[in-house]
Amino acid sequence: MAQKKAKILERQNEVINGLHEFGSRIYSQLDQGVFPTIEMPSRGTDNIAYDPTLRQYILGERNVSRSARNIRHIKPFTQLAWCAMFSNELTTKRKTSTLRDVYYSAQAYEMTFTDQQESNNIITDLETLTGFAREDFHIFPEERSAIFGDLDIGYTVPGYEGKTLNLTSHPDGVLIGPALTSSELINTRADKVIAIEKGALFTRFIEENVHNKHHALLISCGGQAPRQTRSFIRRLHDELNLPVYILTDGDPWGMHIAQVIISGSANAAHLRELNTPDAVWSGVWASDIVEYKLPTDPLDEVDIKRLYELAKDPRYQNDPIWQKEIKLFLKIKKKAEQEAFSRYGLTYIVDEYLPTKLEPPAEKKK
Amino acid sequence: MAQKKAKILERQNEVINGLHEFGSRIYSQLDQGVFPTIEMPSRGTDNIAYDPTLRQYILGERNVSRSARNIRHIKPFTQLAWCAMFSNELTTKRKTSTLRDVYYSAQAYEMTFTDQQESNNIITDLETLTGFAREDFHIFPEERSAIFGDLDIGYTVPGYEGKTLNLTSHPDGVLIGPALTSSELINTRADKVIAIEKGALFTRFIEENVHNKHHALLISCGGQAPRQTRSFIRRLHDELNLPVYILTDGDPWGMHIAQVIISGSANAAHLRELNTPDAVWSGVWASDIVEYKLPTDPLDEVDIKRLYELAKDPRYQNDPIWQKEIKLFLKIKKKAEQEAFSRYGLTYIVDEYLPTKLEPPAEKKK
Repeated sequence: MAQKKAKILERQNEVINGLHEFGSRIYSQLDQGVFPTIEMPSRGTDNIAYDPTLRQYILGERNVSRSARNIRHIKPFTQLAWCAMFSNELTTKRKTSTLRDVYYSAQAYEMTFTDQQESNNIITDLETLTGFAREDFHIFPEERSAIFGDLDIGYTVPGYEGKTLNLTSHPDGVLIGPALTSSELINTRADKVIAIEKGALFTRFIEENVHNKHHALLISCGGQAPRQTRSFIRRLHDELNLPVYILTDGDPWGMHIAQVIISGSANAAHLRELNTPDAVWSGVWASDIVEYKLPTDPLDEVDIKRLYELAKDPRYQNDPIWQKEIKLFLKIKKKAEQEAFSRYGLTYIVDEYLPTKLEPPAEKKK
Repeated sequence: MAQKKAKILERQNEVINGLHEFGSRIYSQLDQGVFPTIEMPSRGTDNIAYDPTLRQYILGERNVSRSARNIRHIKPFTQLAWCAMFSNELTTKRKTSTLRDVYYSAQAYEMTFTDQQESNNIITDLETLTGFAREDFHIFPEERSAIFGDLDIGYTVPGYEGKTLNLTSHPDGVLIGPALTSSELINTRADKVIAIEKGALFTRFIEENVHNKHHALLISCGGQAPRQTRSFIRRLHDELNLPVYILTDGDPWGMHIAQVIISGSANAAHLRELNTPDAVWSGVWASDIVEYKLPTDPLDEVDIKRLYELAKDPRYQNDPIWQKEIKLFLKIKKKAEQEAFSRYGLTYIVDEYLPTKLEPPAEKKK
């Protein structure tokens, strides 16, 4: 336990050191009488490639530089330095903020951003430069998801040091926010994680005791899982050695919600450990729609277009299940929601469907 | 405490009795050899009026009837009877469901609905007929909001009977779901409720200790507060005698988020106690934008159109503040978000703005 806590504090020190390193570099360049200049990997689409070994998108070799010598660079350079300073303030004071907040906070320092898009970009620059995610700098998104299950966490946020919570304490689930994601994972009796696209099914699973029956930690993604939730899933997998199963609607959008948890997004090619390459998409598959004769809606044009895009996406090449299911979706031209199992009664999805989907990933690939 | 619990169980019995009454009426009509017929208030727009005494929309005197004798009525009549049966099942078995789930569940009973709109309408019919909200029948929406603060609740859901939780246990907040809304409110040291439009500010308030400094229960509405959250706010007001303050963005949409918590919506004219007439909209007001020189965006056409609509809305007649602020918005032609206060630093909204907004409602009207 002490070891885990040490690891969390160590991470925080690394983040602060990363920011200070950036600051020191500028100071020493100034001391040497040269214009401050920084280099970082380019995030241009031609410099983003899928890495089959890391099983996520990464940035290539091409760098961009920003120099205070260049009149066009002075504004973004200054913004970046301010952003590092503000992030350092947030991180050391342990206050959280949002992308929106950062945009407005800049005005308190007479730092101008034309619009929020500009400040968002600079925050991504800082991520690229330091290799840390904005969540490490205490800049969180607005979206929220939730967790429930037999896991004891130990808080590290101010006012809660030394306090623990078992995540079955509140049967509606607790929010996945800064306090949760910064906590240590002390102890669990669960042997798997089930991440669920929709809150409704998350609630059903709690009511039907899935956490006990299947020894599972349940996560409600709330649609596309926010980055902090994806990196928390990664921690559950790595630190507690738990396999991760993902349940989504049976359509290209649900499929991609699972894929982003597994392989990440191109937008985060400059970061690591936001994704869980060993996580498994457990359904709803096109073949489930056929096998279980689920109530369906027809695929519309946008769905079909999206399926053709996904078929070509490098993330969909590493497991034959993806290609097989994409083909079947295109053949049956139908989609189904998770709730569609209710046609067989409210508990069918838990009693009949789920157990077939929780076989260990290794066996499933036979 | 026992008294409060008894009240919750009593409510559940009333709900089940309401459903059984509907069933018995059909049976006895059949026994008498007549076609089953029911009457309920019409929800047509011409039968919805704002009641200044109740301070919410109500249905008028006009009734509609549905008779199994009428061939056009047989389908909705049967659907309504099925819906009552299914609601009875959910309520007695204490399982929760969603509008989407009910639509699919119907197929398990070979009950057909053309689409979800049709099943949603029938559920509203059942609300109108019985006077209970669908949440009383354990049919919940997908949307979620959260709460944090010094309140002890006692669960009544299966598996958690006798268990309690203090709502400061998890500093990201706990979800407002079926388990929370069905719990007894045992004890609080708070003396007010602050409902906040956005999750980001909710998190900031927790970090800045607003719950301690201002003895407040904090609620994150997550935009427009879901019905179950609105009725939970009403319970906090009625059962714990707490004044309710609402903080939203400074624009017509934020204004209306507050108004729906206060005065309810026309869609729920057939129901009571979803709204809290004594709750107060505390800001961000147009006059705050001026007074605090907040960073703003210009009002766009849709905002302006919306303001003219609100000016005529009966709910905006009962407090001169509404009309004054609408006029000022139209004059300055600007809007501001809650986060705009960050221009004065991250803690300004808590240290400087909030205290001026938490004067007791009575004094404020002077």
